[in-house]
Amino acid sequence: MHDTVELRLPDPLLAKRIAESTQTRDSAVLPTARIGEWLHGRRQVQTQRVTRMPLTGLRGWSFRDDTGDLVHASGKFFAVEGLAVSTDQGPVGHWTQPIVNQAEIGVLGIAVKEIDGVLHCLMQAKVEPGNINGVQLSPTVQATKSNYTRVHGGAEVPYLEHFRDPEPGSVIADVLQSEQGAWFFRKRNRNMVVEVGPDVEAADGFCWLTLGQVLDLLAVDNLVSMDARTVLSCVPFGTAGPRSAADGFACALALSCDPASGSLHTTTDVRSWMTGVLSSVEVSARRVPLNTVTGWSRTDWEIRHDRGLHFSVIGVDVEARGREVAAWQQPLVRPHGIGIAALLVRRFGGVLHALVNARIEPGYLNAVELAPTVQCTPSNYAELPPGSLPPFLEVVRGRPDGAVRFEAELSEEGGRFHHARTRYSVIEVGRGVADTEPPGYRWLAPHQLAELLAHSHYVNVQARTLVACLVGLR
Amino acid sequence: MHDTVELRLPDPLLAKRIAESTQTRDSAVLPTARIGEWLHGRRQVQTQRVTRMPLTGLRGWSFRDDTGDLVHASGKFFAVEGLAVSTDQGPVGHWTQPIVNQAEIGVLGIAVKEIDGVLHCLMQAKVEPGNINGVQLSPTVQATKSNYTRVHGGAEVPYLEHFRDPEPGSVIADVLQSEQGAWFFRKRNRNMVVEVGPDVEAADGFCWLTLGQVLDLLAVDNLVSMDARTVLSCVPFGTAGPRSAADGFACALALSCDPASGSLHTTTDVRSWMTGVLSSVEVSARRVPLNTVTGWSRTDWEIRHDRGLHFSVIGVDVEARGREVAAWQQPLVRPHGIGIAALLVRRFGGVLHALVNARIEPGYLNAVELAPTVQCTPSNYAELPPGSLPPFLEVVRGRPDGAVRFEAELSEEGGRFHHARTRYSVIEVGRGVADTEPPGYRWLAPHQLAELLAHSHYVNVQARTLVACLVGLR
Repeated sequence: MHDTVELRLPDPLLAKRIAESTQTRDSAVLPTARIGEWLHGRRQVQTQRVTRMPLTGLRGWSFRDDTGDLVHASGKFFAVEGLAVSTDQGPVGHWTQPIVNQAEIGVLGIAVKEIDGVLHCLMQAKVEPGNINGVQLSPTVQATKSNYTRVHGGAEVPYLEHFRDPEPGSVIADVLQSEQGAWFFRKRNRNMVVEVGPDVEAADGFCWLTLGQVLDLLAVDNLVSMDARTVLSCVPFGTAGPRSAADGFACALALSCDPASGSLHTTTDVRSWMTGVLSSVEVSARRVPLNTVTGWSRTDWEIRHDRGLHFSVIGVDVEARGREVAAWQQPLVRPHGIGIAALLVRRFGGVLHALVNARIEPGYLNAVELAPTVQCTPSNYAELPPGSLPPFLEVVRGRPDGAVRFEAELSEEGGRFHHARTRYSVIEVGRGVADTEPPGYRWLAPHQLAELLAHSHYVNVQARTLVACLVGLR
Repeated sequence: MHDTVELRLPDPLLAKRIAESTQTRDSAVLPTARIGEWLHGRRQVQTQRVTRMPLTGLRGWSFRDDTGDLVHASGKFFAVEGLAVSTDQGPVGHWTQPIVNQAEIGVLGIAVKEIDGVLHCLMQAKVEPGNINGVQLSPTVQATKSNYTRVHGGAEVPYLEHFRDPEPGSVIADVLQSEQGAWFFRKRNRNMVVEVGPDVEAADGFCWLTLGQVLDLLAVDNLVSMDARTVLSCVPFGTAGPRSAADGFACALALSCDPASGSLHTTTDVRSWMTGVLSSVEVSARRVPLNTVTGWSRTDWEIRHDRGLHFSVIGVDVEARGREVAAWQQPLVRPHGIGIAALLVRRFGGVLHALVNARIEPGYLNAVELAPTVQCTPSNYAELPPGSLPPFLEVVRGRPDGAVRFEAELSEEGGRFHHARTRYSVIEVGRGVADTEPPGYRWLAPHQLAELLAHSHYVNVQARTLVACLVGLR
């Protein structure tokens, strides 16, 4: 195989192809004006009935006698266990909480192909039991490891073969990324973008959209799913290559996505700063039996925080009708209150920068990841004095007219979370905001976030959604 | 601070400066011919008496009644605990073992400065109780977090201030890297290279050496310490920049260290391959009480494997005389047998490539890291049939004359390990060896290893030593 050797170099045109697809805001394949109609059609076909039911009655699920953990009879899927957290950071040094433990790494994959010379993404209309509105626009493939390695017979996941053993040169992104570290224990999914051949067609329930079309749809409340957003954020938008206006290529963020534009801090200094944070914080998160968790109670219907904060674990009965009829029962995490995830952005030397926060969450494998400027659920702070509100929340709330570059309510993963809604926003500020970055905060250019997103454990799932929103700005 | 904004770009001359220092094999500051004499002098001054003693008598250390863990009275330093490992890989699906748990992240830092226009590294003659030969050549700074954050009063660590809050632009490398995953539970150290100002001088016991001088010293048995080797490997040898022969700059590995030369696999494909391995393996490593570990026994003098394999935990009494007199007692891990760490290298299209192995070790935070082609302790295989020997071990043992590009016996960290010796080698092969890479193996160019080494959890500590050996090849 290596006798006739041809050394490979990164695709010099990839940056331009990505930028072109990003700037193509409509397509003849599925015109933007007709996407609503297509989605309406899918909502007629892919219906789902979700009914709350007692946790104690969930078919296939039970509370273990010894630990109190909520587990599935197969030992697969996921479990609700306890977590004991100790840290030298923040006002609370020690606490216990329920946590979802899902050891398997799944695949979230978007297939792309060139149509009329422009990259299109194969998106799927997918319904999940926790979705507030049934169908959302999802990646080509969402598969568990059991699907992926074909351990089980089961129905085959369409298009999975393109992600199982991709051809050399066809992979555009392939990286493990964390999910919510407040709700999941070390959950990671494999985020993949793979280019497929011209013969791959969109099956029923799938459609081809340009990157620009998908990024525009982010502005529609609860439409583009969390899984789609995290995969999109891993597209290497910040790769060096020909795409600037000088190449005859207009792009609102061309400058900000081009490493040659520079940045306030070099990426070496940014990584050094993160290494310093990781070296200095102490966070210990240890799995414990759910029945040793304090401050939380279990009833037949839910596991809930004694003061009604944070989230509950509830049970649902699901009947879904799509390509096949399916019925099952499962637990879901139901967050209390609507979250806020806001990114302050500011131009330095003409290059947009985003203010990110090195944030500790107990479920992270690596303790700290970069989060949006503000990430919180305000209702959790209702009992606390105003001074304990997160930094920059007042800036986000008091934003002047015209400063809002992006705003939409988007959903977290409906396969695990029940009506988990977050208000995402990108707000442009000027001189006077974080002129000197407070400890734990740094201004990063989009090309730096894109560079970090080629690797695991740098950028958290909420920030990844906002990276997608950022590169989608017109 | 950001009002007068000047955006930063990576130092365009860094690659050339690193290459120049690498190619400078002698220096007027401490000529290579006089290093032996300098070291001899240090060995006269920095003496140490290490005596074995019972574990049960170690001052400040005790076995906990409830768990049997070997712990220090302060709760600091490290502990010897148990680990329960389950995996779907390899011949043994489940085992328990003792493991060293050291939660604190320390700093390993090398200060560099330009002398006569060439970067020199500030190296330290340092003695450790586990060293086979007393003094080894070590980084400028080895500091625990307690030193680093100045929690304790204690003696100040010289030069630490240059690593605590480095100036923007002065950081050349700063990354958390793992250590031995068979002996340590998720141990990581902060590997730093920082450029300091002209006023920084070498104190007693320190010396300035070019990168080329230090890399040449790797060929001396048990001289350059593990801590020095891991930091050296994180120097960005593979950064793009002017350094090729066309720039009038001769360098044996110029081509192989230049990303523009290309490689057998793109780095995107290499990362995708690693992501695939991480997604498919199942490894669970759980801390358990040491007294629940099976197949190991504890006597007053040691914790040992029942068949004498792997390693023992022993106790030592230490009296050290250096800048100050110190005496203490501590446990050390004493490996049984001399390890082998060998890297097969082969030229493809004129570019050297190293055959790396995606290796599972139970103590890794991220389950899998890239290891040398062969990494094993042959004596552990004595009882097993020949067919169970690691792949490529026979290639390493049967290497033809002239194929050995590097070979030396080097020590693992003498602060935790007692006489832990590994035979490191770089062996050049040609057509016929791994023409088709077996599962779990890939040929990578040095510039790719260097690129991965800017991030955590890609390249293991043994492979990092061999990366340093590789870039030091004349």
